[in-house]
Amino acid sequence: MQHTDFSSMPCPVARGLEQVGEWWSILILRDAYYGVTRFDEFRERLGIAPNMLTRRLKKLVEVGMLERRCYNQHPPRYEYVLTDRGRDFRSVVLAFFAWGNRHFAEEGRAVILIDTVTGKEVEPVLTDPATGNVVEGLRYRVVPGPAATDVIRSRHAKLEQARQRSLPADFSQGK
Amino acid sequence: MQHTDFSSMPCPVARGLEQVGEWWSILILRDAYYGVTRFDEFRERLGIAPNMLTRRLKKLVEVGMLERRCYNQHPPRYEYVLTDRGRDFRSVVLAFFAWGNRHFAEEGRAVILIDTVTGKEVEPVLTDPATGNVVEGLRYRVVPGPAATDVIRSRHAKLEQARQRSLPADFSQGK
Repeated sequence: MQHTDFSSMPCPVARGLEQVGEWWSILILRDAYYGVTRFDEFRERLGIAPNMLTRRLKKLVEVGMLERRCYNQHPPRYEYVLTDRGRDFRSVVLAFFAWGNRHFAEEGRAVILIDTVTGKEVEPVLTDPATGNVVEGLRYRVVPGPAATDVIRSRHAKLEQARQRSLPADFSQGK
Repeated sequence: MQHTDFSSMPCPVARGLEQVGEWWSILILRDAYYGVTRFDEFRERLGIAPNMLTRRLKKLVEVGMLERRCYNQHPPRYEYVLTDRGRDFRSVVLAFFAWGNRHFAEEGRAVILIDTVTGKEVEPVLTDPATGNVVEGLRYRVVPGPAATDVIRSRHAKLEQARQRSLPADFSQGK
């Protein structure tokens, strides 16, 4: 499954997507957060074709999200364990998880996130640690950063016009 | 680009992935959060083929993330505006954004998230609103929910074994 190369885009979302590769990678990482480390376990849980799984694991190792580690010398056997970068991606998967549970669990939630200390279900939200506020609505905006190029700045200037035309009615409304 | 149908999986991550469709959809939504609403604007910003853009917009309307709205009668012209479900997905894109900026902005951050009230950059984190704690590490776990089937329960029971074998060394370590 080839697609446009997003890694040349300066946007961190596009770059992130390029690194993660495709949907299977996210489900592989999801299972890694559950504690799965071995090829056969991933394959069995995901129902994924072995050659596809091999490719996705290789890619996740290449981009530094999993580490391939020998756990048996004779015969040689490997497992795939999360790196710091891979572990850090868990917040993305959990944000996706929470959104999916809010919108696509018509027959009830098959899986939930819990806080093992309190025993309670958690419905995580994205917040700004500096203020404690939930990051949502027009208050929070993505703007050119310190390494922005002229192209990015002019694209954002154009967007400002689109924003001022379309957002007051469609995006804000007290959200 | 056809792939396995994830929507039959009870996991909200898999279902969410099925709904969003593929990478382009996430970049289309990203631009919608910037205030983009019109076909030509999406096309120009994304450098996406028109037939692909048409398909992705149609899918996003079908799954209830965008609404197609007539903004001009003669000639008929349409724009694509975010629904509540589409707006709610912003937390996923911003979690992705933050992760991408932490790991793939080697030459500096081209774009940043700011709080327009304080004027400061925001590095959003996923938190539990009940306790205010950052959702990370072994304290937070995904477990069978109220609508879990027997299959899900037995898969999770198997995972418990894998967890207890592999996690203490690989996942916890004070994280």
